[in-house]
Amino acid sequence: IAKEVAKLLEMKAQLGGDDGKPKFVLKTPKGTRDYGPKQMAIRERVFSAIISCFKRHGAEVIDTPVFELKETLTGKYGEDSKLIYDLKDQGGELLSLRYDLTVPFARYLAMNKITNIKRYHIAKVYRRDNPAMTRGRYREFYQCDFDIAGQFDPMIPDAECLKIVHEILSDLQLGDFVIKVNDRRILDGMFAVCGVPDSKFRTICSSVDKLDKVPWEEVRSEMVGEKGLSPEAADQIGEYVQLHGGLDLIEQLLQDPKLSQNKLAKEGLGDMKLLFEYLTLFGITGKISFDLSLARGLDYYTGVIFEAVLLQQENEHVEDTVSVGSVAGGGRYDGLVGMFDPKGRKVPCVGVSIGIERIFSILEQRLEASEEKIRTTETQVLVASAQKKLLEERLKLISELWDAGIKAEMLYKKNPKLLNQLQYCEDTGIPLVAIVGEQELKDGVVKLRVVATREEVNIRRESLVEEIRTRTNQ
Amino acid sequence: IAKEVAKLLEMKAQLGGDDGKPKFVLKTPKGTRDYGPKQMAIRERVFSAIISCFKRHGAEVIDTPVFELKETLTGKYGEDSKLIYDLKDQGGELLSLRYDLTVPFARYLAMNKITNIKRYHIAKVYRRDNPAMTRGRYREFYQCDFDIAGQFDPMIPDAECLKIVHEILSDLQLGDFVIKVNDRRILDGMFAVCGVPDSKFRTICSSVDKLDKVPWEEVRSEMVGEKGLSPEAADQIGEYVQLHGGLDLIEQLLQDPKLSQNKLAKEGLGDMKLLFEYLTLFGITGKISFDLSLARGLDYYTGVIFEAVLLQQENEHVEDTVSVGSVAGGGRYDGLVGMFDPKGRKVPCVGVSIGIERIFSILEQRLEASEEKIRTTETQVLVASAQKKLLEERLKLISELWDAGIKAEMLYKKNPKLLNQLQYCEDTGIPLVAIVGEQELKDGVVKLRVVATREEVNIRRESLVEEIRTRTNQ
Repeated sequence: IAKEVAKLLEMKAQLGGDDGKPKFVLKTPKGTRDYGPKQMAIRERVFSAIISCFKRHGAEVIDTPVFELKETLTGKYGEDSKLIYDLKDQGGELLSLRYDLTVPFARYLAMNKITNIKRYHIAKVYRRDNPAMTRGRYREFYQCDFDIAGQFDPMIPDAECLKIVHEILSDLQLGDFVIKVNDRRILDGMFAVCGVPDSKFRTICSSVDKLDKVPWEEVRSEMVGEKGLSPEAADQIGEYVQLHGGLDLIEQLLQDPKLSQNKLAKEGLGDMKLLFEYLTLFGITGKISFDLSLARGLDYYTGVIFEAVLLQQENEHVEDTVSVGSVAGGGRYDGLVGMFDPKGRKVPCVGVSIGIERIFSILEQRLEASEEKIRTTETQVLVASAQKKLLEERLKLISELWDAGIKAEMLYKKNPKLLNQLQYCEDTGIPLVAIVGEQELKDGVVKLRVVATREEVNIRRESLVEEIRTRTNQ
Repeated sequence: IAKEVAKLLEMKAQLGGDDGKPKFVLKTPKGTRDYGPKQMAIRERVFSAIISCFKRHGAEVIDTPVFELKETLTGKYGEDSKLIYDLKDQGGELLSLRYDLTVPFARYLAMNKITNIKRYHIAKVYRRDNPAMTRGRYREFYQCDFDIAGQFDPMIPDAECLKIVHEILSDLQLGDFVIKVNDRRILDGMFAVCGVPDSKFRTICSSVDKLDKVPWEEVRSEMVGEKGLSPEAADQIGEYVQLHGGLDLIEQLLQDPKLSQNKLAKEGLGDMKLLFEYLTLFGITGKISFDLSLARGLDYYTGVIFEAVLLQQENEHVEDTVSVGSVAGGGRYDGLVGMFDPKGRKVPCVGVSIGIERIFSILEQRLEASEEKIRTTETQVLVASAQKKLLEERLKLISELWDAGIKAEMLYKKNPKLLNQLQYCEDTGIPLVAIVGEQELKDGVVKLRVVATREEVNIRRESLVEEIRTRTNQ
């Protein structure tokens, strides 16, 4: 009943107020949010860590439009296509909001005939999914993508992508994590030796993809019931997808009497072994798990796939956030660019996508729980006065400071009280106050006050800029 | 005919190739573009100049979703509403892409009951306008907005907005510019004393707004013909809109027998005088022109309005780009937040919007004309080898460098030729090469080569990071 009442009240609010004036709901669209200054400060810290990692690995940066021709996105996402936002047909081209950054990247490569690039792209993508905002699942969210396109020797770029995930998650100090790795060729080989018909590979793969959320029994009954797989085949798959490990498991499967007979699986396992050798040289195998249950949803992967999962939440008392789940994922997609090229020319690609919303949720909750005060501006000095009628002098001084590159603010009042000016510094974390007064003007000085210590010292006007720089280390 | 043939060929390409395989047009949507690494490098320079100015003035930063509820945008843009992109109704809320950042900002303030903030917001906005891409007019483009919201003493925040435009345009070295200033109250007072009926203020204002593109005669005939204004009123307006100047013009109009009798105009002129006093203290009146022909298109302005225009193009031989036109604009909108507040509570606001696409067009053309080679990565060192079978050693070394924060790349080949590795550095501007070889490994050193001078020196492995840092000043 309470729910129904709330619904009716909301409808009433939408229809109009008691004064007959039509009212509307003051909100952001479902599954979206604003970022206020505090949230932006956290977000920029996360971006900065991610971007410096991407640059450390020599990536260039590109940008593409937020929407693409509808046909550009058609046939790339399998069952997820229903989640694409379309624009209204207002005459002209039919458009859709981008669903990820990978398909626009492939379109960009084909359109510009680029066969060799290492780039990053950080931008918002759009999915009409069921939002779960407390767990960081939105309809508008950022993806931070790093991809390597080009024909290279096996597994070297693939290993670098995993190194990047490892560096970023370590750098952000999000607690323990594991990066699950598998290969579409191993999955397909496994399906083949278990007796899955070729035509069912992708749909059975979608079922396996659900194993991180639902138990095997449910996945099995979906395979057998909905998807018409034989119980024997399902049970054989069930054996394999329990397996996870490292180099030892790879060796074991290379000896597996069934799998080792399958060409695709053998190729995949051989490359997986090579990958683990490179990851050993990078010193990161401790966080890597070769996991046969990892399948990834999207159709376009052709080789290595991976997904990084946070293992626990720092704030253990916040129950709702225990399972934050996947924060990064990616893999090899050697066929996607060819889908756009008029002649079908392929450009092999491998890449990783970091999802910042879940990471951001964790950091935001952690910050709220802590006592840390986060500054949302970088202002170095407040230009103030203790007496009336000094607005013009404040304007002159602040203009000098701005022109010298000093970050400065003043209160937009003709005659603000000194107390209010000092309070503003306390509230916003401005470390210094430059005070002009009759006497100071006569003496050619400015009184510089350190907010934290209340220390005051007269500085000659011509030395003020230098003094502020020194005291704020900028 | 050639045009028709091109059209038919394009249709054919859309329908399908000769092999019967359906083809599609490989392009970005009309009025949009990709930004490749070179363009991004220029764009980031522009952003960096703009953001550091906004931060110098103590602004916080916010972000809002790319779409808003359709009704949030309704009734805010007057005649321009037809340019709004709507999303398709796929069930759920009706959504539109944002048309500017000002209306979302006002919605944000009302929704969060914020009465006092200084914020910037840099994001893409969307207008279904006729694109003129060579002149930097797109359907998807960035706006860089800085706004001050709150009840303050007159014209202090307004003056700061003009100072900001002046700082940014000077900093970007775009050549000479002028910032035209007017006030909606002066315009409305002028319309009143010229005999324009109240109900026609906004539509006559729209006509005046065209004066920067079409001659007075055309504007006059629109006023008299389409909009039914009396010829006498139009002629009187014609006298006023020719006027532009500085403090002297303000004084002259304050003495104007007709205007000085109008309450609104007098108020506007009084504030304009105050504004010019503050701008004099800022030392920027040289680039400011009080211009009675400036009207600004949008409905929501209530006080000071302004627009910055570049006066000439540096590359004078590129004729197409002589008139780049407006690169920044803004004004005071004291009523907009109240339109969103359930109780109509007003929050006075003034702000400026910098349009980077036109600025970017100029810088891009200038860069193309110059010989300057622009780097698109920040890589400090390439990890290379002169001999075969050293992939593992390269992987070990590059991993050490990454972990120490050095920006490093390697070629993704098992046995790359040294020449190719050096060529890669030449092409991409990487300044250093760290070469591993059998002898170096035995001696515990790495050979560091300076690409520009071809100088080579052996560095002990444990000193390599420090040496690279010193040589690249990072």
